[in-house]
Amino acid sequence: MDTAQLTALGQQLRVDSVRASAAAGSGHPTSSMSAADLMAVLLANHFRYDFDRPAHPGNDRFVLSKGHASPLLYSAYKAAGAIDDEELLTFRELGSRLEGHPTPQRLPWVETATGSLGQGLPVGVGIALAGKRLDRVGYRVWVLCGDSELAEGSVWEAAEHAGHEHLDNLTVVVDVNRLGQRGPTRHGHDLDAYARRFQAFGWHTTEIDGHDVDAVDRAYGEAASTLGQPTVILARTLKGRGVRSVEDREGLHGKPLPDADEAIEELGGIRSLRVHVQEPAAARMLHSVPTGPLVLPRWEGEDREKGVATRDAYGEALTALGAAREDIVALDGEVSDSTRAEAFAKEHPDRFFECYIAEQQLVAAAVGLATRGWVPYASTFAAFLTRAHDFVRMAAVSGAGINLVGSHAGVAIGQDGPSQMGLEDLAMFRAVHGSTVLYPCDPHQTARLVAAMAGLDGVRYLRTSRGAAPVLYGPDEEFPVGGSKVLRSSDRDRLTIVAAGVTVHEALKAAEALDGEGIAVRVVDLYSVKPVDRATLRQAAEETGLLMSVEDHHEQGGLGDAVLDAFLDGRPVPRLVRLAVRTMPGSASPAEQLHAAGIDAESIAASARLLVEQAIAP
Amino acid sequence: MDTAQLTALGQQLRVDSVRASAAAGSGHPTSSMSAADLMAVLLANHFRYDFDRPAHPGNDRFVLSKGHASPLLYSAYKAAGAIDDEELLTFRELGSRLEGHPTPQRLPWVETATGSLGQGLPVGVGIALAGKRLDRVGYRVWVLCGDSELAEGSVWEAAEHAGHEHLDNLTVVVDVNRLGQRGPTRHGHDLDAYARRFQAFGWHTTEIDGHDVDAVDRAYGEAASTLGQPTVILARTLKGRGVRSVEDREGLHGKPLPDADEAIEELGGIRSLRVHVQEPAAARMLHSVPTGPLVLPRWEGEDREKGVATRDAYGEALTALGAAREDIVALDGEVSDSTRAEAFAKEHPDRFFECYIAEQQLVAAAVGLATRGWVPYASTFAAFLTRAHDFVRMAAVSGAGINLVGSHAGVAIGQDGPSQMGLEDLAMFRAVHGSTVLYPCDPHQTARLVAAMAGLDGVRYLRTSRGAAPVLYGPDEEFPVGGSKVLRSSDRDRLTIVAAGVTVHEALKAAEALDGEGIAVRVVDLYSVKPVDRATLRQAAEETGLLMSVEDHHEQGGLGDAVLDAFLDGRPVPRLVRLAVRTMPGSASPAEQLHAAGIDAESIAASARLLVEQAIAP
Repeated sequence: MDTAQLTALGQQLRVDSVRASAAAGSGHPTSSMSAADLMAVLLANHFRYDFDRPAHPGNDRFVLSKGHASPLLYSAYKAAGAIDDEELLTFRELGSRLEGHPTPQRLPWVETATGSLGQGLPVGVGIALAGKRLDRVGYRVWVLCGDSELAEGSVWEAAEHAGHEHLDNLTVVVDVNRLGQRGPTRHGHDLDAYARRFQAFGWHTTEIDGHDVDAVDRAYGEAASTLGQPTVILARTLKGRGVRSVEDREGLHGKPLPDADEAIEELGGIRSLRVHVQEPAAARMLHSVPTGPLVLPRWEGEDREKGVATRDAYGEALTALGAAREDIVALDGEVSDSTRAEAFAKEHPDRFFECYIAEQQLVAAAVGLATRGWVPYASTFAAFLTRAHDFVRMAAVSGAGINLVGSHAGVAIGQDGPSQMGLEDLAMFRAVHGSTVLYPCDPHQTARLVAAMAGLDGVRYLRTSRGAAPVLYGPDEEFPVGGSKVLRSSDRDRLTIVAAGVTVHEALKAAEALDGEGIAVRVVDLYSVKPVDRATLRQAAEETGLLMSVEDHHEQGGLGDAVLDAFLDGRPVPRLVRLAVRTMPGSASPAEQLHAAGIDAESIAASARLLVEQAIAP
Repeated sequence: MDTAQLTALGQQLRVDSVRASAAAGSGHPTSSMSAADLMAVLLANHFRYDFDRPAHPGNDRFVLSKGHASPLLYSAYKAAGAIDDEELLTFRELGSRLEGHPTPQRLPWVETATGSLGQGLPVGVGIALAGKRLDRVGYRVWVLCGDSELAEGSVWEAAEHAGHEHLDNLTVVVDVNRLGQRGPTRHGHDLDAYARRFQAFGWHTTEIDGHDVDAVDRAYGEAASTLGQPTVILARTLKGRGVRSVEDREGLHGKPLPDADEAIEELGGIRSLRVHVQEPAAARMLHSVPTGPLVLPRWEGEDREKGVATRDAYGEALTALGAAREDIVALDGEVSDSTRAEAFAKEHPDRFFECYIAEQQLVAAAVGLATRGWVPYASTFAAFLTRAHDFVRMAAVSGAGINLVGSHAGVAIGQDGPSQMGLEDLAMFRAVHGSTVLYPCDPHQTARLVAAMAGLDGVRYLRTSRGAAPVLYGPDEEFPVGGSKVLRSSDRDRLTIVAAGVTVHEALKAAEALDGEGIAVRVVDLYSVKPVDRATLRQAAEETGLLMSVEDHHEQGGLGDAVLDAFLDGRPVPRLVRLAVRTMPGSASPAEQLHAAGIDAESIAASARLLVEQAIAP
């Protein structure tokens, strides 16, 4: 398109943004209007995409990091012929695909859900990594950011990652309209301030007037021809551009225009320009076929005697899975020697991504890789996954299929103390919509679950432990997600101990001691924390009357609450006792920690004795 | 101290770090050895601190951001005479104050708990803000960072904040030893790479050899005399410096030295130099006295008819609290128009801190301000507080007293969709050690809780709602933390509905409808989600036999689980039903959202009918 056409298209996108927001009675038209020319030029002259085949491997990828500018995105879809005008005006209605913030759960052309600022670029870096290092089919990744969101540290984690990986297939466009939600941004229209920052992180930068369509056009061309560096285009724009009553004015964020009809007239009225978006180059994906049978590791002989840490099992199992499936990739937060992901890195270096100590970027890159069909396993300490909570939450909104693995769970890590102990991770991951939460206690169980995770939907979390523990299960035993294992059971059981991970071993020792005193207890290994094995828990409740959960986690939101999931439909609930970490731990040996927290075998046995006595009393 | 003495002191700190780690059998001596000269020069020639009076308002403040280098910190304490050699060798033992990572819960000279990397600088910025804008007694803030942790986005949020606020009372020393845990960092010994980044964010930078004590000494002097900018000293160092078998070698992170005796000999043997740390200047704190009686806002007349949003009540109550107490400060994540913190900003601009869209920095700055005795209220959308989860977790390890307020909770926000809905916040905050979680439904209740929060220990969380709701309570009603309100009750109740926030109003409507059908139900407003009112819940269970929780939150870890807290000691548990958000919402009106999630009055009534019928059936 030429200058006049591009200018007209920009105005059309503004008009349609105003119309959609007016129809909804809410939305962010002014944030859309500032970026309308940027979007028009991209769509008409640079973006290569087949809207009829969003899964086309050669398609460019566009991420609207400033997700609140969704009216602009949907107006662009209309201009591209992907949706019609009638649908555009369903914006923000119940059941409409056109949500307040775009999500791939509703729209096939959306790569990742946005709306929590500072996430679009981090995920875009993940997609660009896939493009550059794995897919290699030449697509470009375009990310449209707001200026406000550059205050998020996640943006600079992503900038560092992209600069370091020389992602020249990535172009970021920043719509510097100088106004955030509440008022002016830190840097206003000081484009140089942003340029200095991106340059320092190894980026090529261009500064332009974001309403000069020819300048925008040249900048996109320059970005595409820049080699060895990602490019950021810093575009000076005005919020509400084109309508005098709102242009560059504070206090109008997230509000429909006061007079939509007047605004539409001022913008030149309703247009119906149709953009013929360039076709992507022919391409085929290379990684869709598993390459061989899965041979999981087996721990026998000496290992059985010495015990094996579940983190070790994770590293070995993931490596085996990577050998069987070429679509498996691994990501590390600079602790692969601890999480044992280093085993995968050694065997499959081309599919290993070092994200350094940047957990938000770790998870975002995983989401980005998943959008391109890769099956990511991202691991760090369980405690540090809390750093990425908002990214995990948004991954669930996206419906992204990612595997997250947290090691060094609980007080059982010992001397390093509370800063390194994952004690909130089960609560965090259980509350994520559609998540799966797994917590193995044994290497064979770990290996099976690592393999099973790959085939699940949504966010999958596996919790591993630092220390070696006895091998409880055989290499051929199966561990369905949603299942559990009854490790001790008799018809004389007077109590059921529900444990997972490190507490399974403590529970077994306690049960053995209690048995010597004539108190029979059942022990359930609840390795699938979500979904939970309701049938087994209900049967245990019926047969033993009393359940005691034991977990190396704070008492809220973890294993104890998971047990309750079996009883929350109005049926009679068994009596329940919860042993969990209730104090703030300090440094101590693993055994001392478990004892101080009251979750070791001795503490379990003492609580069990008390409860059984109470149950006998009237 | 002169060059020779400083060099000897550096060696002493190395030797003591090696000895402490050897005694513990774990720890991070090599990470301590790289920074030993930096620490020696600071302690001997620049740090002004009274170890006998850690609360002295004029004391400089030191933050060990690389918290794993705790042996170095404790060795410095010994050199300053704060601890003796015997205590040094209790490092990492059960009950010792000298934990694997330092925390102020154990040691009075530690400002904030570290060990999750990338948090020391953000908190240090908060302390420096207090020094510069509030305390104004001339203390300096010194932060020792590792190079690995500069990959964390939180560091750049903090760098941006400090640069923008011209915090020339802040000096950051980066121990660039080029080796992370797993191997080399991204930038190795490229000091310029770090300098470019900090300069871009508005910092003064110096690059030195971190083992040249004279250069280190000059750099500290230069930092102290630099005005208008924070300073970062980028120090080239070697991990394990001084012991040939470990110096600058990979694979030795977090491990005691292979031969401690030999290393000590190589380092010149055990010394007992004693540093006389400079006294701080005389100073007094200005903000410790409340200035007047608290007059909380009242909502009467027209407000009662139109209804009031709890976020509005938060803004007004906080403003009133700020008028009564000069130690109250407020922080915003660039959404103060939405959270209503803007009311405080208008009345008390000198105690208002704009953190822009950087939630990690928002919480870290609050922690920093709290260390200096200020009482911070930091607010943003509930959903976006997930961004700061790791900072909240570490605030609990610190025992920091901070108030966090999350607005726009739940599906009730309406059209903006799931990215903006706090649906995991109750689970996140309940699982934080020692936290308080409050969720009001009414403006008078909100105001009372806002005031009560100020006097609590630990992390306090208040959840507010976007939409206006009926005024249920009078302005003089009291709402103790740990309490609840029984809003409907009779001796014919067949079910108790437990609600909080927006669902209280829905529950009341449902109860009214059910009453018309001859079904009496009790309604409890459980505004104190943690701690929970056990007595009231147990009485309701005894009297009505059946509890139904209703929450605008995912079903895990929230209100429903809080109800269970009353019954987890082995006593009989009532039958329970949980209504919560089980699906991924899209855009829709608030009323449509509540209905789609099955938590509106109609859904509550329908579930209640079914349950009461079941209870009648055999």
